[in-house]
Amino acid sequence: MNAHIRPDAAPVLLRQDADGIATLTLNRPQARNPLSEAMLAALAENFAAIAADRSVRAVVLAAAGPVFSAGHDLKEMSARRADPDRGRAYFADILGRCSRVMQQITALPQPVIAAVEGTATAAGCQIVASCDLAVAGEDARFSTPGVHIGLFCSTPMVALSRNLSAKHAMEMLLLGEMVPAREAARMGLVNRIVPAGEALAGARAFAAIIASKSAATIKTGKRTFYEQREMGLKAAYDHASAVMVENMLARDAEEGIGAFIEKRPPVWGQS
Amino acid sequence: MNAHIRPDAAPVLLRQDADGIATLTLNRPQARNPLSEAMLAALAENFAAIAADRSVRAVVLAAAGPVFSAGHDLKEMSARRADPDRGRAYFADILGRCSRVMQQITALPQPVIAAVEGTATAAGCQIVASCDLAVAGEDARFSTPGVHIGLFCSTPMVALSRNLSAKHAMEMLLLGEMVPAREAARMGLVNRIVPAGEALAGARAFAAIIASKSAATIKTGKRTFYEQREMGLKAAYDHASAVMVENMLARDAEEGIGAFIEKRPPVWGQS
Amino acid sequence: MNAHIRPDAAPVLLRQDADGIATLTLNRPQARNPLSEAMLAALAENFAAIAADRSVRAVVLAAAGPVFSAGHDLKEMSARRADPDRGRAYFADILGRCSRVMQQITALPQPVIAAVEGTATAAGCQIVASCDLAVAGEDARFSTPGVHIGLFCSTPMVALSRNLSAKHAMEMLLLGEMVPAREAARMGLVNRIVPAGEALAGARAFAAIIASKSAATIKTGKRTFYEQREMGLKAAYDHASAVMVENMLARDAEEGIGAFIEKRPPVWGQS
Repeated sequence: MNAHIRPDAAPVLLRQDADGIATLTLNRPQARNPLSEAMLAALAENFAAIAADRSVRAVVLAAAGPVFSAGHDLKEMSARRADPDRGRAYFADILGRCSRVMQQITALPQPVIAAVEGTATAAGCQIVASCDLAVAGEDARFSTPGVHIGLFCSTPMVALSRNLSAKHAMEMLLLGEMVPAREAARMGLVNRIVPAGEALAGARAFAAIIASKSAATIKTGKRTFYEQREMGLKAAYDHASAVMVENMLARDAEEGIGAFIEKRPPVWGQS
Repeated sequence: MNAHIRPDAAPVLLRQDADGIATLTLNRPQARNPLSEAMLAALAENFAAIAADRSVRAVVLAAAGPVFSAGHDLKEMSARRADPDRGRAYFADILGRCSRVMQQITALPQPVIAAVEGTATAAGCQIVASCDLAVAGEDARFSTPGVHIGLFCSTPMVALSRNLSAKHAMEMLLLGEMVPAREAARMGLVNRIVPAGEALAGARAFAAIIASKSAATIKTGKRTFYEQREMGLKAAYDHASAVMVENMLARDAEEGIGAFIEKRPPVWGQS
Repeated sequence: MNAHIRPDAAPVLLRQDADGIATLTLNRPQARNPLSEAMLAALAENFAAIAADRSVRAVVLAAAGPVFSAGHDLKEMSARRADPDRGRAYFADILGRCSRVMQQITALPQPVIAAVEGTATAAGCQIVASCDLAVAGEDARFSTPGVHIGLFCSTPMVALSRNLSAKHAMEMLLLGEMVPAREAARMGLVNRIVPAGEALAGARAFAAIIASKSAATIKTGKRTFYEQREMGLKAAYDHASAVMVENMLARDAEEGIGAFIEKRPPVWGQS
């Protein structure tokens, strides 16, 4: 299924499914894959469809061309300065959409793995930070360069500061410099560095492992991860313990533990 | 003192005290040192005893045999599926006990240092994450492999996500793969890597440093650490400042600062 | 402008301004640059002045002599044990002042960059942790050694635990050992290591980049960073999105984005 097909253009976002893995590909390479209105709409639509699609066990987020994503579409946004309100309503709307897409990734039952080649900047860097996991080609680079144009990367900082230590996040935000892949891995923005051109394969290898597990278990675990980390220690333990009791009583844990004890492969149910 | 001695078996947990350091050793090597009912009871009992024991200045948590701990005892848990409630009450009870043991470590007046050789998996990895410090032999390995058996490591994630960055924690939880000691150190799960077989000596070296300090000061500092990190910046400073005023007025700070100014060794009081 | 000049001594704190960068230098090298009453007063006064000074775009915090700062002035504090209340009121006052200076750094509109040579210990380490960025000479060393004198580094832990992972922070606090610069960088306490003697130049290079950006944008971004990181994910996104709408409508973003689209250098307004 390709979302948001317009008669005058190739789809902004491609979706290809295989072996329980949905690969979404940002598909505006000439424009540097901006998170334009059209791209955000296509991402929102596809994430909503995937959330309800039991055949999908993991999602890979990739991009066509030499740039992963340059973030917001500044020309599209600047054009709205001509609006009677100087663009205020439009800016609030587009930034709200973008923030909701980022939170859709966190809320998605299936894990999302970024496959990054080339540069991921501003909201393009934010979407990598928002994914559950990230694999990058060794030539990939990351930055939050809003300071260069007088527009601080304030929404990207939300995702960045929940992945990086304070000083690392501040360095990216205040200096706006390009961070090479290996440095990004050291900082915790990226899980794995692979040879240039192999990020998609690397992300799919992660996705294949996840797709072989119980979808119901993964869904519960991912949701609980993001819930408990906003709690104090005791509340987090109370919540996680309650979740784990239900998990023990669910079909897939009974099957999985039984298979483990009997030394046979488990057969998972539908999520 | 050995806790929870049963007539039919060696103690599940050994305690040996020397030089102000209590070493607790998980002692079910053939069974991979599971956090069974008996083991959790012995840990709870020993931590309670140590909390009240002024002769103990630091605790080392080690394990007998080639496996540090394999986590929950799945056979013991699975047997309770035959209960009328399919095990619900039992699972809630055992997970609650386990979470309380983890929080006993955090609440213990004395610092707890894990000494890890071999594999520490699931709740066995969680207990390492829950310790204040951890030393690992270079062949040690860590994982939260619940996804393989349909049972997400939801309670381990609480400790893990308070030690590791989000993407590192998610990688361990979603993939369930073994993480080598050096990688665990890079991620922040472990403080120090030592040659294989020297984790106990390394942990005791940490413990000896701690045991040479004022127990009252260490107790106050450890408690304040975990309290303040759940607060906002201003509240944390207000709390820590109030604690530090009391600390200044306590006997050991007066002695310690006096000794420092007079260039002599301090003589600490009892906690 | 030199703050807090006393007739009987060189200023405890030097301020030198050039190219939009204010360099503050702790100037009690013989005494190891303690955060004495006089030093804290001078820091508070200078930060207040800088907060209101539109000509300053970034601040570098450096120190004269071989020691960056040894933290609180223990002799000054110990002398107050002779007070009728054994020093309680004084300790509360001085620790409150110190905590407020640390929070002034966080609240300052301009980013603050520590330039560390030599040792930064106790509250001297805390002030480095409190800066937005830090550059260290390769021979610099860091520690929170309060445990050695019976006075846990409880206020330094607030800054430390918001920069380092839990086990790294606990290691520094419980053992009180010296951490070499490269290790401090690995832990996230320091952004960049430079050859010994070049920390000031390195910090000024960071400051020069920041000073070339829109001061209004930097101010908004820095404030939002510390605000949003104490919020849950949704609240953080709501807040950051609202901030970014206002940022888009501000003069410097219009100029900066226009300049970017027109491929010319931006001309920033006054903050």
